[in-house]
Amino acid sequence: MMKGENNEDSILMNTLSSWKSYGGTLSVHEHDSNACGCAMQFAVFTPPQAANGKVPVVWYLSGLTCNWSNVMEKSGLQRVAAELGVMVIAPDTSPRGDALPNDEAYDLGQGAGFYIDATEAPWATNFQMETYITRELNELVLKEFAADPARQGIMGHSMGGHGALTLHLKNPQTYKSVSAFSPIAAPMQAPWGKKAFATYLGSDESNWSAHDASQLVSGSPSKAPILVDTGGSDGFLEEQLTPDIFIAACKAAGQSLDYRIQDGYDHSYWFIASFIEDHLRHHAKHL
Amino acid sequence: MMKGENNEDSILMNTLSSWKSYGGTLSVHEHDSNACGCAMQFAVFTPPQAANGKVPVVWYLSGLTCNWSNVMEKSGLQRVAAELGVMVIAPDTSPRGDALPNDEAYDLGQGAGFYIDATEAPWATNFQMETYITRELNELVLKEFAADPARQGIMGHSMGGHGALTLHLKNPQTYKSVSAFSPIAAPMQAPWGKKAFATYLGSDESNWSAHDASQLVSGSPSKAPILVDTGGSDGFLEEQLTPDIFIAACKAAGQSLDYRIQDGYDHSYWFIASFIEDHLRHHAKHL
Repeated sequence: MMKGENNEDSILMNTLSSWKSYGGTLSVHEHDSNACGCAMQFAVFTPPQAANGKVPVVWYLSGLTCNWSNVMEKSGLQRVAAELGVMVIAPDTSPRGDALPNDEAYDLGQGAGFYIDATEAPWATNFQMETYITRELNELVLKEFAADPARQGIMGHSMGGHGALTLHLKNPQTYKSVSAFSPIAAPMQAPWGKKAFATYLGSDESNWSAHDASQLVSGSPSKAPILVDTGGSDGFLEEQLTPDIFIAACKAAGQSLDYRIQDGYDHSYWFIASFIEDHLRHHAKHL
Repeated sequence: MMKGENNEDSILMNTLSSWKSYGGTLSVHEHDSNACGCAMQFAVFTPPQAANGKVPVVWYLSGLTCNWSNVMEKSGLQRVAAELGVMVIAPDTSPRGDALPNDEAYDLGQGAGFYIDATEAPWATNFQMETYITRELNELVLKEFAADPARQGIMGHSMGGHGALTLHLKNPQTYKSVSAFSPIAAPMQAPWGKKAFATYLGSDESNWSAHDASQLVSGSPSKAPILVDTGGSDGFLEEQLTPDIFIAACKAAGQSLDYRIQDGYDHSYWFIASFIEDHLRHHAKHL
């Protein structure tokens, strides 16, 4: 399942941990990222079906402050992924390291890469998360694991929901299925998004719209149906997640969207765990 | 679901957190324990069926260093418990607090109560986990939640697997179903058990056997079938968990036992998550 990991030509990654899980394997890896200029960690759930050939792969982009562990430890995705024969990749949310730029706030800097390529100092040197996810880590995973490049989907939570929607809309040929939990669906209208975009991309808002899901879907909707779940008791709902803006944009653009508000649920992994089965089945159906 | 929590007669517990999960509720509570002489926390998963009346309840006893959060965050039990209509209680593993006795080792003191009542100084004042679990917390839960006192089961992991087996064998009328992950099934023969028993109960081994599952089952097997899963790649298997001793004791005593060694799995929650559905179905079937 981990092909050529230690071949003599080059060591592309190191395996930090590996555990048997639901008949498959959960493994954690570290590699030197050119895009981010630092070592990056990611986790892979390899379903048992991968022993017999390449399987569909779903990329899970996490939210603010998270790394690979949150979704792998708390969502229970392995059970359904093992049943469906879907590989799941959980990258980190930013470059990390004492020598790298950071910010004291939880919503900026390390743990808050927003899945874009920064253009402003001091962030631009390392915070190249769009290139990292869509190019560098994609190539590494397709090379090292039994993931089918023609059957890739993308999903995420909160900041990672923004990432999933935008990276899908920018790369519909790469990510052929898409879903999100509690996405920041119109970051240009949300405090989290405005702060991150101004910091990483500069104050000229004309450079922001290429990274805003509601703007992107208006210009170029995708043929993939979008599934979104957001908790009805999510404290960030109105100010940061703004479902109405995204729903209106999708409607105007003719984008297929199933946006579900789940009554009584909040922004946490207790919410994600409750509905992740629906999301993985959505991806498996459309890949 | 939380009856009389804030009634005017007495406040028995405070609710620290509450989240909707799989249509039910996960809640965390704190109360002043008389048995332990300190504030104690525990978590409750209340299935949606509890809105309509009392439901079966399964007690989950955690292993060394854990508190309520490990199993509730990492096992995914909520999904199956919500389907089956089973309440699950996750107590802490010991008294805790800066003013209480402790030990630097991970396998003694706070986080390592071993579900027995200590008789030795300085532990005896607070480390009364058997009384706490079987009496004090039991009464509190039956009073505050929609748990059916006639349908209680018990399970646990590692040190908590020892706790589940022993507390069931000592109280078969209270805990009518039982299962364990990776239990310390013959603690008198295992380094963890010997250290804890010598510390909490003193050096006279005649006082230990009432708290050793393999000894207990020899003297008084129960009518309940016991389900045990242990990972075949568990690094503690031979030295600490000693399945052979327990299996032989059950066989000699006529105790019904299904002890499964799961190939390739270790001692972690990745293992527990992979098989917890089987355990909850076992309890639901026998309650």
